[in-house]
Amino acid sequence: MTSAATDARWLDAAARLAGRSRPASYPNPGVGCILVKDDRVVGRGWTHAGGRPHAEAAALDQAGEAARGATAYVTLEPCAHRSPRGPACSDLLVEAGVARVVAGVEDPDPRTAGDGLARLRKAGIEAAFLPSPAAEASLAGYLTRVHHDRPHITMKIAMSLDGCIAMASGESQWITGDAARAHVHSRRAQADAILVGGGTWRADRPRLDVRLPGLETRSPQRVVLTRGVAPDGVKVINTPAQVAGLDALYLYVEAGANIAASLLAADLVDRLELYRAPIVIGGGRGAVADLGLDSLAAAHGRWQLAESRQLGSDSFAAYSRLR
Amino acid sequence: MTSAATDARWLDAAARLAGRSRPASYPNPGVGCILVKDDRVVGRGWTHAGGRPHAEAAALDQAGEAARGATAYVTLEPCAHRSPRGPACSDLLVEAGVARVVAGVEDPDPRTAGDGLARLRKAGIEAAFLPSPAAEASLAGYLTRVHHDRPHITMKIAMSLDGCIAMASGESQWITGDAARAHVHSRRAQADAILVGGGTWRADRPRLDVRLPGLETRSPQRVVLTRGVAPDGVKVINTPAQVAGLDALYLYVEAGANIAASLLAADLVDRLELYRAPIVIGGGRGAVADLGLDSLAAAHGRWQLAESRQLGSDSFAAYSRLR
Repeated sequence: MTSAATDARWLDAAARLAGRSRPASYPNPGVGCILVKDDRVVGRGWTHAGGRPHAEAAALDQAGEAARGATAYVTLEPCAHRSPRGPACSDLLVEAGVARVVAGVEDPDPRTAGDGLARLRKAGIEAAFLPSPAAEASLAGYLTRVHHDRPHITMKIAMSLDGCIAMASGESQWITGDAARAHVHSRRAQADAILVGGGTWRADRPRLDVRLPGLETRSPQRVVLTRGVAPDGVKVINTPAQVAGLDALYLYVEAGANIAASLLAADLVDRLELYRAPIVIGGGRGAVADLGLDSLAAAHGRWQLAESRQLGSDSFAAYSRLR
Repeated sequence: MTSAATDARWLDAAARLAGRSRPASYPNPGVGCILVKDDRVVGRGWTHAGGRPHAEAAALDQAGEAARGATAYVTLEPCAHRSPRGPACSDLLVEAGVARVVAGVEDPDPRTAGDGLARLRKAGIEAAFLPSPAAEASLAGYLTRVHHDRPHITMKIAMSLDGCIAMASGESQWITGDAARAHVHSRRAQADAILVGGGTWRADRPRLDVRLPGLETRSPQRVVLTRGVAPDGVKVINTPAQVAGLDALYLYVEAGANIAASLLAADLVDRLELYRAPIVIGGGRGAVADLGLDSLAAAHGRWQLAESRQLGSDSFAAYSRLR
């Protein structure tokens, strides 16, 4: 017998594993799976590049015979549909003889949508959902695409203590330090696409690539939101709503004040990632332009602190959109 | 034998005790003293209202005969000068028969300035300074007055995630929540004087009092920095430099963008206390007006994170001026 708290911790661990699939699993959801028998991990898997093998298949492959009688912790309900690319994971779990399956999130894909667990139960396996915030967060790109028909959108802003993203002159290099800038590169490496505005593009010609050892090949697609002409080598969209059409589960926005405001006003931002340097600029350029807010009351209740840490002398804080 | 680490911890505890003297000890420094014998506290004292009794006298009084052979941990060097109001603390420590004195900060008062410890050593007591950041922080008001001839100045700013202190319309009630506002009242209660600008005074008619149970009598002197006429019941200063003349060791500034900029530009701010609500305003009023900064590089190296915590859904971060 395991307690719900123990189950939740194993799901947390599976959610961390799922992080390894990002962004290579695109366009498939990045799933994590851990097989546990007698309190020992006998197999671990995550969705591989392009979506195959699935996390369960990878974990079962690692466990071999040890999977018999184990509990499978999986962030997303095991799929119930066979595809030309491989068998259904629920069938694989049955064949491997696992005793129990705990899933963090029900798969909203209509080909599964509860059928994955139903199939397991029919085969005599104890199978249940245990709602898991960590699993849900690890599937944010997939769930946002299914529920809102667009990528999950993270907006990054680097600012001074007084909320400026540049001096009045436009000077903005550098506000934050090395550790914060390396963190930004690691975040880029997790995105399928990066978006900037036309103004930032013209002013900074940002490379928007990932300059971290070993991750140089991870540089995501570059997208410019502008009414102007398309620069070479980048995709252009003309309105915030067109983010829906991007080939991406995770979009990372490095915006100036106008793009920030237009995306926020359209409620297209799921996560704010703020880097704050211990400097005061005074009379500089604000981080977000006019949103058309009616009253302060209307601004409340939308954001919740999700994560905070120090990065060298800069502070990092991430906020999730409450929905 | 005690280790330096143990001594440092006792000095930290003495510094916490010193906090109890603030602001009642004004105009005297608020000092803390702990008497320790065989790893047990035998006496604790802090500077009382108006400066007497001194911390050492209070701790010795509590310890009685148990002071004999004890170690006295004291945030500030015991005074060496007799005054009409009482004997020198270094004499009191000798009379009480303590074995050892550890002081966190040498008293810059020329009547003591090392003579306190010299007097103790002459009487055969082991006496030494152990530089203590906690003791120094607890004496910030006194040390700033001695070294810079002005009060220690804390500037509070309550803002949105995007660094706005009000909407473009001027609406600013409320950005932060109850816990943050109660924290502000507790900070007011520790100040000798509170300063606002003429604009804030006219717009908000702030009460600037302490509305916390049991601390209602602690409301500090109200000061308005303005070129205009003096409102009733408040002190007026016309320039930032005139803060030097205020009867205060600790000045708490609740400023709009212009006063914030003028105090920062004059390098008159020792501590920034920032409250950040999890809201985005967009195109609102910035926290700090133009400082006349030449380049971003000039903004760096001035501030260091000193403290951070959550207050309900708001974040609090305090920064110390590096000097």
